[in-house]
Amino acid sequence: MKIPETIQWAGGTHGTVELIDQRQLPAQLQILHCKTPAQIYEAIQTLAVRGAPAIGVAAAFGVCLALRETSNDLPLAAALEKVSDAVGYLNASRPTAVNLSWALKRMQAAARAFSGSAEQLKQRLLNEAQAILDEDRQMCEAIGHWGEPLVPDGGAVLTHCNAGALATAGIGTALAPLYIAHQKGKQFIVYADETRPLLQGARLTAWELTHAGIKTVIVCDNMAARLMQQGRIQAVFVGADRIAANGDTANKIGTLGLSILAKHYNIPFYVAAPSSTVDLSLDSGLQIPIEERKATEITDILGSGVEMPGVSVYNPAFDVTDAENITAIILEKGIIRQPDRQKVAHFLKDTKGQNGQ
Amino acid sequence: MKIPETIQWAGGTHGTVELIDQRQLPAQLQILHCKTPAQIYEAIQTLAVRGAPAIGVAAAFGVCLALRETSNDLPLAAALEKVSDAVGYLNASRPTAVNLSWALKRMQAAARAFSGSAEQLKQRLLNEAQAILDEDRQMCEAIGHWGEPLVPDGGAVLTHCNAGALATAGIGTALAPLYIAHQKGKQFIVYADETRPLLQGARLTAWELTHAGIKTVIVCDNMAARLMQQGRIQAVFVGADRIAANGDTANKIGTLGLSILAKHYNIPFYVAAPSSTVDLSLDSGLQIPIEERKATEITDILGSGVEMPGVSVYNPAFDVTDAENITAIILEKGIIRQPDRQKVAHFLKDTKGQNGQ
Repeated sequence: MKIPETIQWAGGTHGTVELIDQRQLPAQLQILHCKTPAQIYEAIQTLAVRGAPAIGVAAAFGVCLALRETSNDLPLAAALEKVSDAVGYLNASRPTAVNLSWALKRMQAAARAFSGSAEQLKQRLLNEAQAILDEDRQMCEAIGHWGEPLVPDGGAVLTHCNAGALATAGIGTALAPLYIAHQKGKQFIVYADETRPLLQGARLTAWELTHAGIKTVIVCDNMAARLMQQGRIQAVFVGADRIAANGDTANKIGTLGLSILAKHYNIPFYVAAPSSTVDLSLDSGLQIPIEERKATEITDILGSGVEMPGVSVYNPAFDVTDAENITAIILEKGIIRQPDRQKVAHFLKDTKGQNGQ
Repeated sequence: MKIPETIQWAGGTHGTVELIDQRQLPAQLQILHCKTPAQIYEAIQTLAVRGAPAIGVAAAFGVCLALRETSNDLPLAAALEKVSDAVGYLNASRPTAVNLSWALKRMQAAARAFSGSAEQLKQRLLNEAQAILDEDRQMCEAIGHWGEPLVPDGGAVLTHCNAGALATAGIGTALAPLYIAHQKGKQFIVYADETRPLLQGARLTAWELTHAGIKTVIVCDNMAARLMQQGRIQAVFVGADRIAANGDTANKIGTLGLSILAKHYNIPFYVAAPSSTVDLSLDSGLQIPIEERKATEITDILGSGVEMPGVSVYNPAFDVTDAENITAIILEKGIIRQPDRQKVAHFLKDTKGQNGQ
């Protein structure tokens, strides 16, 4: 199975962040070499790197880049200030995915707890970012193993956007169970919603699944209901950008609609994410900030130079799926079936206990 | 209010069919001048003209074109054979919209009932096609007046694809109530689903509504659920390509999903169409033939030269909405609320009686 290396650090403390430039896929596989926090910020904002877990990992390495050019004689206090600045700066790159601020808080905490030289701090931060990446990879594997039994043997699953290897440092979240099921020899087709406006499904999910040898069929977002009506879909797997305390889940625009269709047709609807995606500080999905992006993401398709005087465009990048539409949330520690406030709280407390955190 | 002339006949029996080339909108307003049935066939198949009622009108005029170049000395039998050939030929241009075969059957019947010279037959057929156009225009007006009270004053409606002036010879079907409501001074916004893959919503609906002075917001198809969840949509208006005897309705792909979302959010979902769209010969929507179109309609968006080896595409052009999801069907003779087999049969019988047919 060929799984892309979406994000990695190359070199020592003076190294670079290597990102697959996802804006170029599937036309070409190009690597971005980022040397500054500003380059990471731009890569996140323009979706060169996207997917909640991958954004978190990229931002963590972005903090390391804040000290890349600094002298080793820099006083620690000055180095810590640079780290704080980078954390605040990178945190504003995108609003919805909570993994971004989760990873940045972790980098900030590692810096604050540190005592030693600025030179040593560089290594400490790099270790922390690498730990975030390694843990993400392990969480993907674990999500895959928990979710695999939910993948039908025969038939088809539907997925939306890209919650695969390209959205994480590992084998993905929503796609992880599919990769594991494929490895185990299960036979199934994946219908990939193209996912307008930026086509992460048609460009990224189809690309990575096909490279891994999984049969993929691209459909337009508006075709899901017909597929379900015809009995062609046995399960829906999607990722998450933020999960509120009551189980409401923000994910790529279009996810909410799919969850309602799946419910209508009695098809299981699964959300897969690492527990860093759960934001217990938010009571419900209503409080999740939803990013609105520029109109041209939608209207560019009409061709260059086409003017639509008087026409407006609404372009929310995410929507919020009600917990009651979700059959189960698949985390790295297990499965929360029919998620609600109590189960989410109970589950996260338990797993925190297990982790000794 | 500026309403485009989607289709008209120019000249006498040697005239041409003038069509707005809808493939070029909104970039340019170009007129196709069709002189042969083959040009009409191609215009229908490539969606230069589209929308169930407009296809019917175009095909009717297409039959007239079969005799355009024939000598006036042609024996009537030979002329009738040319007419039959054109009817059979044009009938195969698209499978789903029943208005196509309805209009062609009417042209065929007019020809069969005719006695006179081939020269006189040309005029007779032209009169019949013009009658189909005139009646379509009147039906649009009538649908508009029946549907207008259902348009909210304040708030917004959602529509999908284009069931407007560009889909008919008049002011449209789904959009007719909106035009009449706008004329009466009602205030509302129209959210236009862009309608992948061919973007009839973003290209055509936004174009014609804005030209008529109605405020229009383009959204991607996958954004409808979010709009509804936020309470932004007060009603959904869509057209129809074929309505079965039980009220099941084929319309542009994506309509089924919208109907389920509207039901979930308790938003009225209206289907507007002339009664020529009702096909009493089909017991239910399951029997409606659904056209599948070529994969490149979907994948062209990825850019020229982008290959996706091993990736498949599924591209159904229509789906079938269950009658139980439809709040009301708006016909030119009135409104069938909560349509079912009995109501549809009763309503069509009544209106046939009124028409003396």
